[in-house]
Amino acid sequence: MHLPHSSWSPGGTLVWTTDFGLENGFVGTMTGVVAGRVPDARQLHLTHGIPPQSVAVAALELRAAWPFFPAGALHVAVVDPGVGTEREVLLALQDGRALLAPDNGLIPAALDKPAAILRVPWRDHALPEVSRTFHGRDVFAPLAAALLRGELTAGEMAECSAPVTLAASELPVDGLAARPGRVRILMADHFGNLLLAWRLAPGEALPAGLRVRAAGRSIPCADTYGRVSPGEPLVLLDSWGLVEIAVRGGHAARVLGLAPGDSVDIEWPL
Amino acid sequence: MHLPHSSWSPGGTLVWTTDFGLENGFVGTMTGVVAGRVPDARQLHLTHGIPPQSVAVAALELRAAWPFFPAGALHVAVVDPGVGTEREVLLALQDGRALLAPDNGLIPAALDKPAAILRVPWRDHALPEVSRTFHGRDVFAPLAAALLRGELTAGEMAECSAPVTLAASELPVDGLAARPGRVRILMADHFGNLLLAWRLAPGEALPAGLRVRAAGRSIPCADTYGRVSPGEPLVLLDSWGLVEIAVRGGHAARVLGLAPGDSVDIEWPL
Amino acid sequence: MHLPHSSWSPGGTLVWTTDFGLENGFVGTMTGVVAGRVPDARQLHLTHGIPPQSVAVAALELRAAWPFFPAGALHVAVVDPGVGTEREVLLALQDGRALLAPDNGLIPAALDKPAAILRVPWRDHALPEVSRTFHGRDVFAPLAAALLRGELTAGEMAECSAPVTLAASELPVDGLAARPGRVRILMADHFGNLLLAWRLAPGEALPAGLRVRAAGRSIPCADTYGRVSPGEPLVLLDSWGLVEIAVRGGHAARVLGLAPGDSVDIEWPL
Repeated sequence: MHLPHSSWSPGGTLVWTTDFGLENGFVGTMTGVVAGRVPDARQLHLTHGIPPQSVAVAALELRAAWPFFPAGALHVAVVDPGVGTEREVLLALQDGRALLAPDNGLIPAALDKPAAILRVPWRDHALPEVSRTFHGRDVFAPLAAALLRGELTAGEMAECSAPVTLAASELPVDGLAARPGRVRILMADHFGNLLLAWRLAPGEALPAGLRVRAAGRSIPCADTYGRVSPGEPLVLLDSWGLVEIAVRGGHAARVLGLAPGDSVDIEWPL
Repeated sequence: MHLPHSSWSPGGTLVWTTDFGLENGFVGTMTGVVAGRVPDARQLHLTHGIPPQSVAVAALELRAAWPFFPAGALHVAVVDPGVGTEREVLLALQDGRALLAPDNGLIPAALDKPAAILRVPWRDHALPEVSRTFHGRDVFAPLAAALLRGELTAGEMAECSAPVTLAASELPVDGLAARPGRVRILMADHFGNLLLAWRLAPGEALPAGLRVRAAGRSIPCADTYGRVSPGEPLVLLDSWGLVEIAVRGGHAARVLGLAPGDSVDIEWPL
Repeated sequence: MHLPHSSWSPGGTLVWTTDFGLENGFVGTMTGVVAGRVPDARQLHLTHGIPPQSVAVAALELRAAWPFFPAGALHVAVVDPGVGTEREVLLALQDGRALLAPDNGLIPAALDKPAAILRVPWRDHALPEVSRTFHGRDVFAPLAAALLRGELTAGEMAECSAPVTLAASELPVDGLAARPGRVRILMADHFGNLLLAWRLAPGEALPAGLRVRAAGRSIPCADTYGRVSPGEPLVLLDSWGLVEIAVRGGHAARVLGLAPGDSVDIEWPL
């Protein structure tokens, strides 16, 4: 296989995605490590609100956001249940952008058609002392800096032929044709909207007449919030292609008493 | 009316205000769209913690922050209960700064004396595919980029003569002369301080002897926290000019058992 | 004493640490004040999630993060229970970096060996109107800008010979030799890990056989999460050198029913 190593060159933009939250100095410290090594790096943040250790949700966020970041962007995703154990670090290239992440299933779940998935010689670029609990600071931040500075390049990395993958049960169901009967709630957003583990393909729409049975109610689908009365629930396609339960002007998770991990039934039209 | 279109030219600073929270990748994705189109844009964040769909609170935050941002700043406020329905997008100019927002009452509530309120031809500058639920990414981010790049200018926009306005009941009471008897709690901050929907004008002070009756107590006013004992409540003017109930060294919302939406009584001195 | 005023020159990086949270526009407004005065300042954020008015936790965060920020960095820490009262502002220099903070115990708790602690003539550089409740905006942001621009320099400041210090009871116990029997829980992080007020020195490790008695359980220590089964608690050294109670793949605070302020017993091996 010819590795299109030339398919990415760093454009000076680093994009962080973690499950660290912002309550502590973890994220800030990582940005400090990069700022010291690459003073003109532009550090953006996709989110630090990934549910703790949820590789599957991190993959969804990255998949949804991928086309909207500039060419040359280096995404660094530190959702790393295996921190402190032996696990490799991978760099994947797709569409002129790159994703640096632990080898824990994130990359295959986030990227559809990577041009390459490479093993990163991370031990050569980590900080002199690597802690057991904070590889974001000690491994990923200096690696990202080395990539941005061109001190570490895709061209010198070997291919990873068998990256770790997530179990199918952790991933969302794909497409209309899968015709799921029961679907898990994957996460709730800031508005209380409930995102289901069911994703339609670009161009697919929810069929008219489809309903979701949840919390003792049969909820209709609609193409926008304005189709139902204030306070009423609806099912719609979110901006990521995920099927979502919302309440117009309200907080669906609270109104319906549902939370990530619960399941709902799909009622298909006849 | 002569439109002072020349009263704003973009200074390279974009300031985001939304109700999106930081738990998901919404905000990060918007910054990615702008970074791809305006690599040297400086993106700041006023806050993403506006209570969901609260146009009135977003307006208060912007009003309070307005004079503290640099000349040329472009504020983009995406608090947009009408997303997915027909609603226009406006650009308002005041004091050498600009505010891009949906036509939903935010601009008249945030700006006292706009030099111009203009209708933005947003359909010409949105992303090729506009989703029904995420206009922050698909409409406002590319519009902001077009404004920063000068591809879209205030000079080519028509005036909006009748922007949507908020109902008086959604806005804070203004000034000492209004002499309110009962006032709603508008929001709580990170410290648990309770901000009332009552704003004094610059230069106005709470009259000596004024008290607030709340949670069965009569709370005195003071000019600073140090005037009462630790653990005791007080009423003071916050840095925005809003009347605030605080507890010295404590969390007023928890100590007093009060929340946004509750009302309190103002006891005027004789 | 010779003051090594030349030990710091500003490198263009400002790092914010506050207890303001991100729910309101406080932090964003401070960044606006700096951006207007120092357009090319690089503003980073250590965290804004310091527990309200907890000078001791802010000191721990800064101490842990200090070596990871670039030379020349100017840290600005606004955790300021005394806002609105008379209290001085200090600038401390250590290892080529600087820390601007109120004189409230933060600096001596955060920095081990400051080259200098200086009194800042803050009244000369504050905004024209200084509110009683928001010195972050009115005092610290313009001071930081003046320092970054070189309009205010360490060389023109007098030494502060007796900075305010925190009471010993507010600070973590230091080192293995202290051999504490009972230790307070200092804070919880985003993952629910419980950080104890006990810090080991660099190079020190938890002795094999040490256990922590908490929530009716005797919890073993381990060098990494992988040493215990999923769902089981362990005691380990966090990346800061603080002793931490964690649950593998779980949220220790919830699983064990413990919170900051609670105390636990240390069981020393025989």
